[in-house]
Amino acid sequence: MKIILSGALVLYSLLGTIAQTDLRKEVFVFPKESSDAHVLLIPQMKKPLQNLTVCLRAYTDLNRSYALFSYATRTHDNELLLFKPRVGEYNLQIGNEKISFEINDDLSYPVHICVSWESASGIAELWINDKPLVRKGLKKGYLVGAEAKIILGQEQDSFGGNFDHRQSFVGEIGEVHMWDFVLSPFQVHSLYSGQTFSGNILNWGALNYLIKGYVVTKPQLWS
Amino acid sequence: MKIILSGALVLYSLLGTIAQTDLRKEVFVFPKESSDAHVLLIPQMKKPLQNLTVCLRAYTDLNRSYALFSYATRTHDNELLLFKPRVGEYNLQIGNEKISFEINDDLSYPVHICVSWESASGIAELWINDKPLVRKGLKKGYLVGAEAKIILGQEQDSFGGNFDHRQSFVGEIGEVHMWDFVLSPFQVHSLYSGQTFSGNILNWGALNYLIKGYVVTKPQLWS
Amino acid sequence: MKIILSGALVLYSLLGTIAQTDLRKEVFVFPKESSDAHVLLIPQMKKPLQNLTVCLRAYTDLNRSYALFSYATRTHDNELLLFKPRVGEYNLQIGNEKISFEINDDLSYPVHICVSWESASGIAELWINDKPLVRKGLKKGYLVGAEAKIILGQEQDSFGGNFDHRQSFVGEIGEVHMWDFVLSPFQVHSLYSGQTFSGNILNWGALNYLIKGYVVTKPQLWS
Amino acid sequence: MKIILSGALVLYSLLGTIAQTDLRKEVFVFPKESSDAHVLLIPQMKKPLQNLTVCLRAYTDLNRSYALFSYATRTHDNELLLFKPRVGEYNLQIGNEKISFEINDDLSYPVHICVSWESASGIAELWINDKPLVRKGLKKGYLVGAEAKIILGQEQDSFGGNFDHRQSFVGEIGEVHMWDFVLSPFQVHSLYSGQTFSGNILNWGALNYLIKGYVVTKPQLWS
Amino acid sequence: MKIILSGALVLYSLLGTIAQTDLRKEVFVFPKESSDAHVLLIPQMKKPLQNLTVCLRAYTDLNRSYALFSYATRTHDNELLLFKPRVGEYNLQIGNEKISFEINDDLSYPVHICVSWESASGIAELWINDKPLVRKGLKKGYLVGAEAKIILGQEQDSFGGNFDHRQSFVGEIGEVHMWDFVLSPFQVHSLYSGQTFSGNILNWGALNYLIKGYVVTKPQLWS
Repeated sequence: MKIILSGALVLYSLLGTIAQTDLRKEVFVFPKESSDAHVLLIPQMKKPLQNLTVCLRAYTDLNRSYALFSYATRTHDNELLLFKPRVGEYNLQIGNEKISFEINDDLSYPVHICVSWESASGIAELWINDKPLVRKGLKKGYLVGAEAKIILGQEQDSFGGNFDHRQSFVGEIGEVHMWDFVLSPFQVHSLYSGQTFSGNILNWGALNYLIKGYVVTKPQLWS
Repeated sequence: MKIILSGALVLYSLLGTIAQTDLRKEVFVFPKESSDAHVLLIPQMKKPLQNLTVCLRAYTDLNRSYALFSYATRTHDNELLLFKPRVGEYNLQIGNEKISFEINDDLSYPVHICVSWESASGIAELWINDKPLVRKGLKKGYLVGAEAKIILGQEQDSFGGNFDHRQSFVGEIGEVHMWDFVLSPFQVHSLYSGQTFSGNILNWGALNYLIKGYVVTKPQLWS
Repeated sequence: MKIILSGALVLYSLLGTIAQTDLRKEVFVFPKESSDAHVLLIPQMKKPLQNLTVCLRAYTDLNRSYALFSYATRTHDNELLLFKPRVGEYNLQIGNEKISFEINDDLSYPVHICVSWESASGIAELWINDKPLVRKGLKKGYLVGAEAKIILGQEQDSFGGNFDHRQSFVGEIGEVHMWDFVLSPFQVHSLYSGQTFSGNILNWGALNYLIKGYVVTKPQLWS
Repeated sequence: MKIILSGALVLYSLLGTIAQTDLRKEVFVFPKESSDAHVLLIPQMKKPLQNLTVCLRAYTDLNRSYALFSYATRTHDNELLLFKPRVGEYNLQIGNEKISFEINDDLSYPVHICVSWESASGIAELWINDKPLVRKGLKKGYLVGAEAKIILGQEQDSFGGNFDHRQSFVGEIGEVHMWDFVLSPFQVHSLYSGQTFSGNILNWGALNYLIKGYVVTKPQLWS
Repeated sequence: MKIILSGALVLYSLLGTIAQTDLRKEVFVFPKESSDAHVLLIPQMKKPLQNLTVCLRAYTDLNRSYALFSYATRTHDNELLLFKPRVGEYNLQIGNEKISFEINDDLSYPVHICVSWESASGIAELWINDKPLVRKGLKKGYLVGAEAKIILGQEQDSFGGNFDHRQSFVGEIGEVHMWDFVLSPFQVHSLYSGQTFSGNILNWGALNYLIKGYVVTKPQLWS
């Protein structure tokens, strides 16, 4: 596994803390609302994406909107964005286009999330706690850009910045993985059940990341 | 099994995609609200109907009204229509006359639906997830017309067209079957339980259909 | 068993359909709101009643008021009336006096109902799905009149007529029995559990009745 | 066991019905709202009380306030009063002082109630269906007066009278016992479970009582 | 174990009741709203705290705000405060800074609470009935002061006083322990399950305390 430290990354590493770690059984705690605290995730490879899946576990008691996974390019700040606008709804953006998923969910329980998208059909799947929501479609034929800032804890309104504290994440995030293909239902089920199945773009078991601001790594207490 | 391609159907086939397929374990995904995306279903036989049953599975998170099954003739755009006007209610129309079924249902769960009607008594049955709702009656003595456009995804306000995006279906539909008789409770139960029991008018295991617009065939993830 | 066809009954039989049938496993379906559709039940004996029980099963999705069992004499249109004024309440009338029973009930589930009354104490029992509601009392010492019209599907505002479509029953009714004594808890439980225990005034297994208007006899799908 | 018939009691017995009975498996039914129907309970002994417990079962569908147990002296009409002011709350009064117990309860289910109080600490316990509510305290050091009218069905606003029909009990009451000590959790549990454990002040298995107005003794149908 | 009786404590002991007791299977009952009733807890050792955990069980039916554990120093009245501002929320204060925890909770059930905080990360954990809430952070690097008044039943608005009856606790509190370290999930689980695990700052099994006003020690009826 190689890490290509770009100029921006080097700058980050001067200001923040760099690490490559096995984070299994750990989570990032975002302890307070802020407009700066976040984690920059450094992918294991960079390529334009025809297919993709992102999975993670999150635990929060926010009842305002917040970003769960923000992947921005220079051309699209919402190149790939998983967002929670309110209780009962998730949003996915691809190339700045948005779709909405409705769900009967409750505040304040941990949740396992997998979101996938394929360019050929434009179909997006959202799995919440191993349950597939109603599939939607967007950006059929599109390519998700390769040169991206991948950020947990904040929503990028420009490439790598322009954070809004009212959309910041407060709570705990773990088991973040990303793949360049669409996971099968069986693979989602394995992840939900706690099996190890490592992402090939982001891998929680060998993660390169930079912490910026008040973010703490702690043992995972829940699942 | 024969397909009689009418002039209109030929026209469709020039614009859309024609297919006869075993769709078991597949669903149609209607990924976006539109006023054009739909599937035209071509029956295995055409005859005036004294008795009928339509069954299907649907999964949607819409909280507005939408059509589930639209069967129109030149004289009646709602010759046979299964419609969801709101959470808690289903409508059935026969020959443009409407009846209403009340139910305590929840948003965002997959549902198995069978609706039947017999001319001799006018009695209509609606089964939701193997549970019979309160029977109602309409159009006693009527004959459902044979020359029909059968459409999933849109509600026909004229013969084969005049769609309203505010009544379009967004979500997933599968296991569509149609018979020229009223199914017994045991037959409904078998279908609900996943047994194969093929319709003689429409048969999901050997379906002739035309996709128009943004509709995608995908593996069924739920039941 | 003898049927005494009174003049009024003969008139009915000219207009309606007369029958004496074993209706076990059958129900009456009242398919539509109307101000005329009903079933006239002809008792096996006529005598003033010091004690009585009426049991039946009903399935409706009405959310307005409706009559379940209307027993009228020339002097009292509500000589014996079981009425549902709203979700959460049942009414019983004896000799035009009314009492109310409160219950936490849900729309749209089938229900088994037994109501009894004894003159000596005036105490009325209402059993809903084998559960006794809080007993109330009315018309202590009264005699329920013998010469009555017993009607399902409509509420009599005069002897045998004056129906109001806004109080008509829409749905399904079955297993109607009437006795000239108060059933024991064990007998109510037996009926609820589906045991055969025939009424001596009205007996669903050998019922004399006249159908008037749009009422259909159909197999019972639920219980 | 002796009954001392006081002058007032003699007067009662002229107007009402006197009885000493084993009421196990029986209940008092209060069939109608009134401002007179009640039962006067005659204690097995009379003495000032430093400690006490009252238990009973009640079944009502009232959604207004009502009295469950009214024990009045010449000096305090609410010397000992168990009162239900609304769904979700019980009140206890000792010597005209009131405390409140909050509970998540539902309308229209039978309930087993034990209330106890000890003078030394002032602590009152309220057990609802074998579950202890949060203890409160009142009238520490007080003595509950001996010469009392003990009434079911009405709330005394003066010694033995001044009833308000809007606080009358409508429904069924049974298994009433009273002790001159505080029951242990095990004793409460035994009573709730249907074990026989007789009160030494009031004993449902050998009760002296006077019925006044429309109150009926009937077999207990519920528990 | 030594008790250092400070001047203030001596003053207390003149006005109140002093005790060192094994309180296992006992609770403090706070029977009434007041602005004076409380219990002063005397720690087994005094030292500035870098890490801490407080656990207790509470049972109340209050639906207004109330203090659960008030630890004040001369410089900060809310040096360490566990507070319930409303149904659905807990607050923790460290050094007068406040964080909020959201929860779906119900009125009127007993609850087991553990709250911990570590200076190194500022991370606070709140466990409700063995379930960890979303962690938050505050006062990273801070030291909790040693010279404190630790009070149950009232919220200190100044060192050892200035109580507000509208924030007083009414109900029952037991199994209070305090440690100078952060408990592991297993240790929290043991406590919740009723295992004995004694605090080294406060120990319910050998507690030094002073009761002031109307507070009663009673057997624990619930858990």
